[in-house]
Amino acid sequence: MKGWLCIAGLGPGDEQLVTPEVSAALAEATDIVGYIPYVARIAPRPGLTLHASDNRVEMDRALAALQMAAAGHKVVVVSSGDPGVFAMAAAVFEALEGQAHWQDLDIRVLPGITAMLAAAAKAGAPLGHDFCAINLSDNLKPASLIEARVRAAAGADFAMAFYNPRSASRPDTFARILALLLEMCGPDRLITFARAVSTPEERIATVTLAQARADMADMRTVVIVGNSATRQVGRFVYTPRSVALPVLP
Amino acid sequence: MKGWLCIAGLGPGDEQLVTPEVSAALAEATDIVGYIPYVARIAPRPGLTLHASDNRVEMDRALAALQMAAAGHKVVVVSSGDPGVFAMAAAVFEALEGQAHWQDLDIRVLPGITAMLAAAAKAGAPLGHDFCAINLSDNLKPASLIEARVRAAAGADFAMAFYNPRSASRPDTFARILALLLEMCGPDRLITFARAVSTPEERIATVTLAQARADMADMRTVVIVGNSATRQVGRFVYTPRSVALPVLP
Repeated sequence: MKGWLCIAGLGPGDEQLVTPEVSAALAEATDIVGYIPYVARIAPRPGLTLHASDNRVEMDRALAALQMAAAGHKVVVVSSGDPGVFAMAAAVFEALEGQAHWQDLDIRVLPGITAMLAAAAKAGAPLGHDFCAINLSDNLKPASLIEARVRAAAGADFAMAFYNPRSASRPDTFARILALLLEMCGPDRLITFARAVSTPEERIATVTLAQARADMADMRTVVIVGNSATRQVGRFVYTPRSVALPVLP
Repeated sequence: MKGWLCIAGLGPGDEQLVTPEVSAALAEATDIVGYIPYVARIAPRPGLTLHASDNRVEMDRALAALQMAAAGHKVVVVSSGDPGVFAMAAAVFEALEGQAHWQDLDIRVLPGITAMLAAAAKAGAPLGHDFCAINLSDNLKPASLIEARVRAAAGADFAMAFYNPRSASRPDTFARILALLLEMCGPDRLITFARAVSTPEERIATVTLAQARADMADMRTVVIVGNSATRQVGRFVYTPRSVALPVLP
């Protein structure tokens, strides 16, 4: 049997947001590999082995998946959201880098609805103009780089989406980012906290930076900060498509 | 009949990338509204009226859609990709802004696979770390702001995705952006040109900035520029998840 490896995005949670392409790969797979809560979304069936592993073992998981595909298995590595956005696709290519003998394997990345776009859709259209996506976790990069990127994004009046804004192991990072944004963008800038989007626990709230508190976010929250033109209309928040005049010196 | 309005993303082209949520809305709709080539993707059926209009009439289209929903129609405004990324969702909210009597309408945004994520998946994982999405069209914003944002993104070592990189009406913008990137990021930085992703005309090419030419892009191309760590492994291009040391002063 000729094996293959797909790195697939399951979307933010609702099965109605899983693409038919991903569903087809899951239906053909012999092995599903991923972080425990994502693998738990896959229904067991005869002929399918579920390999669930804990967080922070991405490289082991990627190597195991490559090894199974090389041995003829049909392997789907599952990520929440989109596998290419702060998820497993980069880990698989990192694992592949040291393994020239695996580089001819049938490997495909299957995109999914990433959390920031599902969150933006629920809130309205806060990412309707130029925006940045920034992972606030400092597990894999220095906190100084996170701050430099937020400064650059705010300085150039980008809207921003933050992934992994806050965890128990680094409770202060997000508070510092909020303070920086307040200083650079002012108290009236809109910020949306979108927790567990498209799941039964979904909770979406838009407030101003003056009202924002770090504990409004946790690891299941995506945070979206508007640009200087972002505004509310009725129950929605949106960023206009146009900029009339230069806003930068 | 109680009307509603969905602003839905059809994904980049392949029907396998249309979410079940969007397919369900299309199946229930009485009216489809959108730009000609996107409406052309919807199969005609009895009871469904297709309202196709030309580019650059987004506000007229949004007002017409709101009016039909207010009159009891079940209206889907279709965008390519994701409706919240340089597409119709912001236009609908802009149209809604002046119309308080429509603000209680049943309006929902249904996310889709946006072009940059489909392109990234085909190329590997070039957006696997912090990135910016920038619309290079200067129809709705000054060219100086586009350049300022590209400078900010390159200066903070973001990966970048460019929408609408080039059109006949502004052939020089993209050439200037390429020259700026070459100056700031150096000749070896990787850049991916992804044209018509997931359609029969798909063409994906990754080159260095030294090799990049403006005419490698057109209006159907999404351009992805890696960050300083982006590299190739086999036929793929990816951006590592980790940054070992501060790369900024």
